[in-house]
Parts: sequence; C-alpha cells; structure tokens
Amino acid sequence: MNYPSSLIEEAVNELSKFPGIGKKSALRMVLFLLKQEEAEVVKMGDAIIKLRKEIKFCTRCNNVSDAELCNICENPKRDQQTICVVEDLRDVMAIENTNQFHGTYHVLGGLINPIQGIGPEQLKIDSLIKRVKETDAKEIIMALSANMEGDTTVFYLSRKLQTLPVKISTISRGIAVGGELEYADEITLGRSILGRIPYSV
Amino acid sequence: MNYPSSLIEEAVNELSKFPGIGKKSALRMVLFLLKQEEAEVVKMGDAIIKLRKEIKFCTRCNNVSDAELCNICENPKRDQQTICVVEDLRDVMAIENTNQFHGTYHVLGGLINPIQGIGPEQLKIDSLIKRVKETDAKEIIMALSANMEGDTTVFYLSRKLQTLPVKISTISRGIAVGGELEYADEITLGRSILGRIPYSV
Repeated sequence: MNYPSSLIEEAVNELSKFPGIGKKSALRMVLFLLKQEEAEVVKMGDAIIKLRKEIKFCTRCNNVSDAELCNICENPKRDQQTICVVEDLRDVMAIENTNQFHGTYHVLGGLINPIQGIGPEQLKIDSLIKRVKETDAKEIIMALSANMEGDTTVFYLSRKLQTLPVKISTISRGIAVGGELEYADEITLGRSILGRIPYSV
Repeated sequence: MNYPSSLIEEAVNELSKFPGIGKKSALRMVLFLLKQEEAEVVKMGDAIIKLRKEIKFCTRCNNVSDAELCNICENPKRDQQTICVVEDLRDVMAIENTNQFHGTYHVLGGLINPIQGIGPEQLKIDSLIKRVKETDAKEIIMALSANMEGDTTVFYLSRKLQTLPVKISTISRGIAVGGELEYADEITLGRSILGRIPYSV
C-alpha cells in the first residue's frame, strides 16, 4: 500500500507488529493518534518505552514486579511451600482475582512448543527445581492451559520433579460452574466423569 | 483489576485508549512488549511520538504530508479543478489504489455528526469553499460514506456550493462488481434501479 507520508508508514509498520493487529487496524490506530493532543500521544509512547526499560522480574517467581521480590513472594501471609506453576502474568492475575489461592506462584514465561522452537531451556524450569529444593516445597499445582503445549509442559515438569519429595497436582478440569451439560464438548464431559469427586452435603 | 506493577497498569491504561482495544487486549499487547528486545520497543514508542510531533497537513487539501503541499497537490499532472471530497486519509489511499482518479482531493477530517458534537465548523469546509473559488474548480465529487452522517454532510456541502459555478456529483451507489442480485440489500438494489445508466457496447 502507498502511504501519503513516511511517518505514517513507519508508525503503521511498528503498530502492526502487535499480535492480532494488521496493517488496516494499525492505520486506524494511526488516524486515532493524529486526532489526539500531542501531549497525550507523547504520554502513550513514553509509557511503552518506560514499561520495557524499567520493568523488573521477581527473582524468586519470575512474575513482573516493581522491586526485587514481587508483592506476593514478599507477603509473609502467603504459603511459600505451595507453588502454583503458571504460563504468564495474566494467569497470576486471573487466579489472584478468585481470592481462592494463598500460596505463591512460579511464572514459566511460556509453554514447551517445539513447533515455535520453545524448549524447556527457554522457560524458568531450572529455577523452579532449585526453588522446590531450597524452600522444601510441599505442593506444586500445575495451572497450565489444557492443550497440547500445556500437557507436554506438565508431563516434562512432573518427570523433572518426581525424584523430589513434593506432591504434584493440577487444577481440575470439568464442566464450568453454571454450564449446561448438553453444550459441553465431549472431551471435557468425558474428563469430568473420569475425574468425578465424592459428593458431600 | 489489580496489576502486579504500576508500570503495567500505566501501559495498559494508555494502550486501551485506542479504539476497539479493551483492557484485556491491552494487557496482551503489554505482554508482547515485555517479550521484545528493548531497542524494538523504544523504536515503536519513538515512531508513535515522532508521527504526532512531525506530521504535517497539506495546506491545500488537508491530507497528511511530509511537506507543505502533499504529493498529489504538487503533481502537475493532477487536475486541480476536479476535487474529490473525502472523510479521511484512508479514503484517499483507497481511491488512489484504484488508479482511476486523476484529480485532487479535499480531506474534511470527519463527517457532520450532531450526536458526537461534530458540526460543520469542525470540518475543513470553509477551506473547501475558498479553494473552489480560488481554483475556479469545475467539478466536486462527493466520495463520502453512504450513511446518515455522510448524506447530511453531502447535503450541507451542496447547499454551500450551490451559488458557485461548479458541477457537484457523488460516487455511484449500486450492486458491487461481481456481486449477486439476490444477496444485495433492498436499499442498495432500489438505488441501483433508480440510478440506472444507459447500456452501451
């Protein structure tokens, strides 16, 4: 496409690097930026640059943090011996929003995905093993996506951890709360029957 | 939502200002940025800021431009007396891509929309009238969207221009080339019958 200005072309090329943003959406974003006050746009550009330059990662759990240790790792009320393994910080935020978990997290930074060239060495797996040993962890909860990459990563981690005296669990899979049986897919329904739990009143 | 870092919160707030980008999409964009090289992110932030700071608008047609006059207005091969009125630069790019138009443009910067508080005085209408008088324009082609705002703007412009010796036309509406009659909506089909043209071989 021919852009009327090299500045527009450059901004479109940069913004279309975002996942899910094509050239047309990027051009829409550029038009939006042109209609904003200059100070607003400078604020946005600076926020992006500052984010990348100043962000820190917790040295214990690899979650993003403003300090050396994140709020969760630093909190004495959180159980340091129960570690929930997640893919990225969105999962931490989602689980924190439930208010049901009082342990700590370990952010892998991705899932094993040979097609995209992501192997165990690119993920924070060694630091997890080291942490399990050092903190004498009691339980590792695998809270990874229920797809091929998630299952592969859980399998790999469970093999790595099997020699250590730690309990390994995964979050339960089944019919969503409020979900109707007839609309559930077969695999989920099948798993929910195999993984049935005793009913108590 | 509770963000694990104020830097993330700020970047999410800034990115969710884009039209069609909510907090969840913005968080996805932030995660993408965190995985990029620092130099790449700085490049993106700078491109946004530079775009807004350095962009110029053609003093004649209001299209974006790297210089005082845009490439199209400056081109001696383009007919300065045939002016195509469009909403924004995306329309200029779309029409330029057809290679069917050899006149010049006038970018209004929006459409009359009382609900959003956009009146004629916010648009580049006065400069259009002035330009029509100064260049002794022969034809004004209205290439605006076929919705209420577009129709209102065309009506307003035609009233403003009616005392001047200039021909006013609008782009034709009808069934798309390659489109099938049975799938066309009634209004478009109705308009295409009312606006039928002589058939010539």
